[in-house]
Amino acid sequence: MTGTAVARFTADDYRARLERAARAAEDAGLAGLLVAPGPDLVWLTGYAPTAITERLTVLILAAGQDPVLVVPTLEAPDAAKAPGAPALTLRDWTDGKGPYATAAALLDAAGRLGVSDNTWAMHLLGLQNALPGSSYASFTEALPMLRAVKDAAELELLAAAGAAADQAFEEIRTVRFAGRRESDLARDLAGLLRRSGHEQVDFTIVASGPNGADPHHEVGDRVIEPGDMVVLDFGGLKDGYGSDTSRTVHVGEPTEEERRVHDLVREAQEAGFRAVRPGVACQEVDRAARAVIADAGYGEYFIHRTGHGIGVTTHEPPYMIEGEEQPLVPGMCFSVEPGIYLPGRFGVRIEDIVTVTEDGGRRLNDTTRELVIVD
Amino acid sequence: MTGTAVARFTADDYRARLERAARAAEDAGLAGLLVAPGPDLVWLTGYAPTAITERLTVLILAAGQDPVLVVPTLEAPDAAKAPGAPALTLRDWTDGKGPYATAAALLDAAGRLGVSDNTWAMHLLGLQNALPGSSYASFTEALPMLRAVKDAAELELLAAAGAAADQAFEEIRTVRFAGRRESDLARDLAGLLRRSGHEQVDFTIVASGPNGADPHHEVGDRVIEPGDMVVLDFGGLKDGYGSDTSRTVHVGEPTEEERRVHDLVREAQEAGFRAVRPGVACQEVDRAARAVIADAGYGEYFIHRTGHGIGVTTHEPPYMIEGEEQPLVPGMCFSVEPGIYLPGRFGVRIEDIVTVTEDGGRRLNDTTRELVIVD
Repeated sequence: MTGTAVARFTADDYRARLERAARAAEDAGLAGLLVAPGPDLVWLTGYAPTAITERLTVLILAAGQDPVLVVPTLEAPDAAKAPGAPALTLRDWTDGKGPYATAAALLDAAGRLGVSDNTWAMHLLGLQNALPGSSYASFTEALPMLRAVKDAAELELLAAAGAAADQAFEEIRTVRFAGRRESDLARDLAGLLRRSGHEQVDFTIVASGPNGADPHHEVGDRVIEPGDMVVLDFGGLKDGYGSDTSRTVHVGEPTEEERRVHDLVREAQEAGFRAVRPGVACQEVDRAARAVIADAGYGEYFIHRTGHGIGVTTHEPPYMIEGEEQPLVPGMCFSVEPGIYLPGRFGVRIEDIVTVTEDGGRRLNDTTRELVIVD
Repeated sequence: MTGTAVARFTADDYRARLERAARAAEDAGLAGLLVAPGPDLVWLTGYAPTAITERLTVLILAAGQDPVLVVPTLEAPDAAKAPGAPALTLRDWTDGKGPYATAAALLDAAGRLGVSDNTWAMHLLGLQNALPGSSYASFTEALPMLRAVKDAAELELLAAAGAAADQAFEEIRTVRFAGRRESDLARDLAGLLRRSGHEQVDFTIVASGPNGADPHHEVGDRVIEPGDMVVLDFGGLKDGYGSDTSRTVHVGEPTEEERRVHDLVREAQEAGFRAVRPGVACQEVDRAARAVIADAGYGEYFIHRTGHGIGVTTHEPPYMIEGEEQPLVPGMCFSVEPGIYLPGRFGVRIEDIVTVTEDGGRRLNDTTRELVIVD
């Protein structure tokens, strides 16, 4: 989670987010929020310490008090430079003294508190010990949608990241695939993402032939051959906001079956996209995409959820998955990425980032979803 | 913590570490251990998932049962390829089903359990909810020295990482400093670390002039000038094991005061090093270094602890800090890095990695500790 880049927002933007978080906490019946370094802290304050260590850094939002960032003394000068720092009070603690007492003094000793998902267990245990009467809920449990609805400035950054990833696809489709290793193509993709403005590359999946049938295969040394399907799934952060897109290409002419499976995934992706509109539950997006694949008899080969949110990370709520009843809200941003994986043979995945508007979905990726033939 | 590289050990090496961890847990009165992705999991299994997400992955070591790695179904094929996988049973769970129930079924419902420091709070809360009768202690609290004592193969890798970092210093001292930005030198250092075999660069601190007085200043756009002291502190992972060394150089001839402060830090570093021998408490290393600086009247300007352990991370227990009574044991590896920081003026830090042998300390960094003059 280190290395998360920070977009350029003002102290007022961060103040507004801090107030939004405080209201959300109150609505959720929480006495306060604890936010450790990671994407939530980046989103709320613009602060990302150089390294996340055993030294406690935590933002404390508690009812009736101004936001306080508890930081190790040595890191206070850096924290003070964060763009959101003017909206915060900094409280430092020194090596050898107890950070948990410092944090506990700011909290309701008997309250229910929200804690950011990726807070280290050692810190949660330290707080639980310091405040034995307190209880805790993760953000995923209590405030899953805290960062889910993006404002106009965030949407602009996400659209720019999507366009940059599309540019990388437009270039990678022109390079030679046959005879090269997956790892060579992955390196090409990483370079193209950086050239198109990404400061952080999160993944460059190149899964050829049978490797494409493992949806979490990242990249290997397999030499790509004529006749291979190749799943490309890549993204990262540009100006602090995420891109994530997948296209499946074919080396030379595909077989009829390959074309049919690709068409099916394309139709499923389209169906998922068309299901997007305000008020619809997330699971309906999953169901719409899945129905197309299941109806064609390939249901057992679509072995993951249809999508995940994106923002200051490339992977966050909301999730497009059966059982997620959260209604879509304009400004939410997530992937729609159905796939079919035929073990030992090949896989196909097509993925766009989609944002919810008043009228339906808007795609933030715009390269062709037809099967692209590469050399 | 992602990106932690994996050194090449055999399944037997991992089996031995798993057994060592199980014994340590028993000795600490724990009914079991929970190890999430991160350095502990890398050390125990060689497995580092591509990304650490909200999907639970956890190694469970419980008394009287074989080690079990609980993984998301999609990630099971990758986990099965880990070098330590033959020493483990893999148990997968699928999206939409409950991972905590899967993990809880393997644990003593009323036991006290150790949990790796960086386990996500959301996962700890999930387990606490699934097993309301259980209690938890972080590794830092219950098993701080689990990875602290390195075996011969690990010491060899740490020595090689130290030598590679030294090589980077020997090259950086020959380049031009004056007129260039700190960020230019940092880029040079990162390139040199990579060229010397580091697969991961963790930090390349270049803190010139007054920036050197902030011990956590990383790097900025300040142009280095003749007459500047420049603190260089850099390291990363080579073959999965860490390097971390600091030298302070001077652009052109130093003043008498600059030379005196540098000499003092060098003497303090030497005193810390000489305090290293089996059976001595960690805090004695801190005291020995600190006494030299305090006796010369600079005590208030040495504002951090003297050292930290190093291994599969560049920052881990044991800590050389007042209050740490842990006795040194042969095979422990840590930094000895006193410093003096004169606000608004300059700073000096000198750091070597030191390992404990039967006879005393052995340095894993070997570049000169005299003040190096650069151009």
